[in-house]
Amino acid sequence: MELKPERQARVVFTPSGRRGEFPFGTPLLEAAWELGVDVASICGGRGLCGRCRVVCSAGNFPKHGIVSSPEHLSPAGVVETRYGERGQPLSAGHRLSCQAAIQGDLVIDVPPESQVHRQVVRKDADSRPIRLDPVVRLHLVDVPAADLGAGSDLTRLLDALESQWGLRPVFPAALLPNLQGLLRAGEWSVTVAVHQEAEILAVWPGFKEAIYGVAIDVGSTTIAAHLCDLGSGDVLCSNGMMNPQIRFGEDLMSRVSYVMMHPEGSAELTREVRRAVNELVAGTAADAGIEAQDIVSLTFVCNPIMHHLLLGISPVELGGAPFALAAEQSVHLPARDLGVEVNPGAVAYALPCIAGHVGADTAGVVLCEQPHRSDAVSLLVDIGTNAEIVLGNAARLLACSSPTGPAFEGAQVSAGQRAAPGAIERVRIDPDTLDTRIRVIGSDLWSDEPGFNDTLPAQGVTGVCGSGIIEAVVEMWLAGILTSDGVIDGGQASRTVRLVPDGRTFSFAIHGDQVTVTQNDVRQIQLAKAALYAGIRLLMDRLEVTSVDRIRLAGAFGSHIDVRYAMALGMIPDCSLDAVAAVGNAAGHGARIALLNQASRSEIESVVKSVEKVETAIEPRFQAYFVDAMAIPHGPAELARLGGLFPGRATRPASTVAGRATRGQGRRARRTISAPRPSKSS
Amino acid sequence: MELKPERQARVVFTPSGRRGEFPFGTPLLEAAWELGVDVASICGGRGLCGRCRVVCSAGNFPKHGIVSSPEHLSPAGVVETRYGERGQPLSAGHRLSCQAAIQGDLVIDVPPESQVHRQVVRKDADSRPIRLDPVVRLHLVDVPAADLGAGSDLTRLLDALESQWGLRPVFPAALLPNLQGLLRAGEWSVTVAVHQEAEILAVWPGFKEAIYGVAIDVGSTTIAAHLCDLGSGDVLCSNGMMNPQIRFGEDLMSRVSYVMMHPEGSAELTREVRRAVNELVAGTAADAGIEAQDIVSLTFVCNPIMHHLLLGISPVELGGAPFALAAEQSVHLPARDLGVEVNPGAVAYALPCIAGHVGADTAGVVLCEQPHRSDAVSLLVDIGTNAEIVLGNAARLLACSSPTGPAFEGAQVSAGQRAAPGAIERVRIDPDTLDTRIRVIGSDLWSDEPGFNDTLPAQGVTGVCGSGIIEAVVEMWLAGILTSDGVIDGGQASRTVRLVPDGRTFSFAIHGDQVTVTQNDVRQIQLAKAALYAGIRLLMDRLEVTSVDRIRLAGAFGSHIDVRYAMALGMIPDCSLDAVAAVGNAAGHGARIALLNQASRSEIESVVKSVEKVETAIEPRFQAYFVDAMAIPHGPAELARLGGLFPGRATRPASTVAGRATRGQGRRARRTISAPRPSKSS
Repeated sequence: MELKPERQARVVFTPSGRRGEFPFGTPLLEAAWELGVDVASICGGRGLCGRCRVVCSAGNFPKHGIVSSPEHLSPAGVVETRYGERGQPLSAGHRLSCQAAIQGDLVIDVPPESQVHRQVVRKDADSRPIRLDPVVRLHLVDVPAADLGAGSDLTRLLDALESQWGLRPVFPAALLPNLQGLLRAGEWSVTVAVHQEAEILAVWPGFKEAIYGVAIDVGSTTIAAHLCDLGSGDVLCSNGMMNPQIRFGEDLMSRVSYVMMHPEGSAELTREVRRAVNELVAGTAADAGIEAQDIVSLTFVCNPIMHHLLLGISPVELGGAPFALAAEQSVHLPARDLGVEVNPGAVAYALPCIAGHVGADTAGVVLCEQPHRSDAVSLLVDIGTNAEIVLGNAARLLACSSPTGPAFEGAQVSAGQRAAPGAIERVRIDPDTLDTRIRVIGSDLWSDEPGFNDTLPAQGVTGVCGSGIIEAVVEMWLAGILTSDGVIDGGQASRTVRLVPDGRTFSFAIHGDQVTVTQNDVRQIQLAKAALYAGIRLLMDRLEVTSVDRIRLAGAFGSHIDVRYAMALGMIPDCSLDAVAAVGNAAGHGARIALLNQASRSEIESVVKSVEKVETAIEPRFQAYFVDAMAIPHGPAELARLGGLFPGRATRPASTVAGRATRGQGRRARRTISAPRPSKSS
Repeated sequence: MELKPERQARVVFTPSGRRGEFPFGTPLLEAAWELGVDVASICGGRGLCGRCRVVCSAGNFPKHGIVSSPEHLSPAGVVETRYGERGQPLSAGHRLSCQAAIQGDLVIDVPPESQVHRQVVRKDADSRPIRLDPVVRLHLVDVPAADLGAGSDLTRLLDALESQWGLRPVFPAALLPNLQGLLRAGEWSVTVAVHQEAEILAVWPGFKEAIYGVAIDVGSTTIAAHLCDLGSGDVLCSNGMMNPQIRFGEDLMSRVSYVMMHPEGSAELTREVRRAVNELVAGTAADAGIEAQDIVSLTFVCNPIMHHLLLGISPVELGGAPFALAAEQSVHLPARDLGVEVNPGAVAYALPCIAGHVGADTAGVVLCEQPHRSDAVSLLVDIGTNAEIVLGNAARLLACSSPTGPAFEGAQVSAGQRAAPGAIERVRIDPDTLDTRIRVIGSDLWSDEPGFNDTLPAQGVTGVCGSGIIEAVVEMWLAGILTSDGVIDGGQASRTVRLVPDGRTFSFAIHGDQVTVTQNDVRQIQLAKAALYAGIRLLMDRLEVTSVDRIRLAGAFGSHIDVRYAMALGMIPDCSLDAVAAVGNAAGHGARIALLNQASRSEIESVVKSVEKVETAIEPRFQAYFVDAMAIPHGPAELARLGGLFPGRATRPASTVAGRATRGQGRRARRTISAPRPSKSS
């Protein structure tokens, strides 16, 4: 008897376009994997996980020479029916590719949710989508039962993992005590979580559907956590809380001082931040309705001081020159070593720091904003107690920190406070009447709109935050009651009761008696903005550019500030307004990228290594730029631009005061003001 | 001006014989390292560690064409003088090779103590010397001081380690908190302990001279620890203690039963053994006068049940068929995970198990006795509650365990006890008078020697241990009061008051009324020796040999037994008496090899993998061999040999009883005795 050559079916997978011919009866998943088509699976083809769902495209596909029909697939059998009955019925047209066998020519679409390496798109479409490829992945394994002479449970598990998944990971000793019980509880079927295809992190009996990771941004003021499904990349829950270290000092330098004065202070601060992270992670898991035990991966971004405290390293060396980091490298460690009560095998990853004052949070911003992947010159600024500045493009990246001090965060300002409900965040001054209008965090109304008082938070108006004080200063200058060298002009006191003598200087009341801008407040803002501008200018010099193509303001401050005022004040250089954007949680998004895409970790590690670190403290020009940048505004370009920023308002003060003040400022500054030393970190 | 070609000096290093030519002024250490000569150094040439001491051989060496003289070396300078003043003066003729510079032709001897990979010779010259190559090694590193823009402390340390030692190990996050303090305390000089050239385990400020390791043999009854200097390989201190788990059961199966009956039992037993190991290690360190913090490496050998309990794995699965180990692989883990309070970075290594009943202790014996490196067929036997048996040579190794039961350990024997002071270990019976002579552990005299009673331990004679009962049984047979099928012959009662009726059988009193051998005692010994012999015979069948070239008896039992009696009883097969030896602490020595020589770890891992595991429980022939081996002695070869073992004594019982008994034995055994199932592990 002669055997007829077996007829093969033609199958095309979309969107990849990969195609091949397969014998009738071949399961679709097997065909897909043979062609290298990206189809996900946890259960390895047992019809349990539903990750391999595909859709048959019906019709005539002349391009492929195929007439495709759902009838060219084997009918749904008991496994697919049972899968549908287990709570997540298959949508119409969807099939489990591990169960549906090829019975004719087919065009098969692999929807995004069935791809291992699908793209996770962020809500604000502006920023980089993430290619899902987490460091930890699940695999269901069927292990032969124990038998005399059959080798140990571990040997049979590892052999099964190799034959069923092509993996030969390390099995840590810490998992041994539970292994035998889990294998028997799962009736010789377990799901293992494998880290970077190299190490088993956890074992569950039977089929395990989902594992999770948390991206954590540990800021000086707040700690934010984003809980993600590592299988889908979805953010299930985002929570934030105050950093409890605040009771040791609102700004970071106070905390470093505390450590310097208390031998146990560093351990105490470490305990506090770890406790908070643990609490936040537990709360996030509870809010998302998942078990903390199912969290297997954590990523961290922090400024250098928080980075050190989180890792249990005293920040004292960061409190004085030469500001030596213990390590700027990325740090891998077991999550339990940070006291985070998630899965005992969970791994933690802290992004690398860039330099002594440019932390892993800035690395997160870089990973999110990817200046290293563009020819456009990007300026990234993260303003805290220090400003962390990154400038450059694919060819070259520079970074420095500039000692702005805490004025932008509302500290060292008479009525200053953090950006929190009750704080004035917007200020307008009528140039004629010198009356003020304000907006307060927590209310959507201006103070001159009806019902404003009813919308105030319970505590009322409590102070002024960084963006409020910046607007106040700019508005005072626009209204002609502040000279360009930053003197509150007592000569204008006759125009308004708001200008009140304050010792040998004057203050301006922006809200009642309590919230005033004093002469010292203006000085603090001048010092801060001059430091920021000088740092940016230094990097621009080094990069040999006179303008930048885009500006990104990261962090909470960047989100509150009105970019027009930042420009008017001379905080940031010339740039088209629409190329400037706040990217509030860019650092946290960077942590999420590192959580969901393992390649991004080596990417940021290598970018950080290549960044040229500029030390403002030892750059002679920094001092000169700093002094020059004290004026409000501080150069002809800024003056010219004010007309565009504030149409119809910018002429009066500029023409009457600025010229004289700018000249005078230079002299005075050189006598009385010196650039602050970079002794602080944000 | 013309430059004369620089004159080079000829230098030969012994014992390696490596030679080369070097410019005048080259330090000897540099020359040695350039030639690949094995010269040790911790300090990397700073004249601190003294590990690189060499001796100049003076005289004419025609073979090398060299006239060598100590005057061809630069005179000792301030560094060598200072080294000599720091407590360990240089012996006459010794120079620090890092300081002595070449000034002419030289023959330089590198003494063993200056070689990195020197051989550590064991006191009993019989066994394998160890090539020193521990997994952890010290390196002194000079790190550039912190400076602005100079990179983090860790970066500078790792860069220095690479440039000074050619190493780029991983630095674990757990060491970060102390790094900055240590670098500053050591004034930018630290000694690091590097594990397998891959990971830093510990950092000390300044120059650190020595680190230590402990090889630990965790037995069911005793735990032994050998503290070694990892730089010299010397054993500084060996200590032992009782395994505190004994309170949960003297033999292992009682402990497994305890675990089966108590849900927390396994954790409790784990706690006990870890506490004991910790105490033992601490005591060993104290006795040797070193800090436990300087211990960085531990190795463990244990039987499978102790192995599991030490690692925190319940032994329940080992208590019943199919006797599945959780893992037979070697296990690496941080020593702190075992609760051992040594250096926090210390690493622990447990040798691999061979099979469900053939443990890491047997792997240690194999590593020590290396049957896999010889063509001679070796038989290794470790007798505990189970006998663990290894047979073979370089071509092929087999292993099995045989369920001897605890009789050889003195359990399940009426007056039996462990081999401890007070136990009868030697028994002689006068064939004419049937009077007995005994020797007791703790005394060097026989009971018929003057002063015997004065030498007894305080508790007096407390029972009979395994070797004592074996000798008693053989002597009873030789004296004609025990038939070859193991019946105490009541017909001989008229000859001695020592033969007393005991229900329907007779007992023989070997010491006063308390220590008697009952009919059941003889049965227990028969069962045990038959099981042992059947296991050995099975392996010999598999290997297709009828005799073995050498026999090694490991463990405490092997050390106590008189090999002649073991042979007479038919425990071990035909072999020249002088090819049989007890190797008491072979398992512990194996642990020491694994501690001091890293290559031995992969060696034993690969040998263990290649061992053919034979399951006695499912081998049909095991039962037949077992039944055949019940007789005393049990075959013509043994009978013939008895003449050689006990000249002038062996004829009487053999000629009067053996023939009949041997025949009768076969029938009776098949009716009433079945081979015990392998339900126990030693």
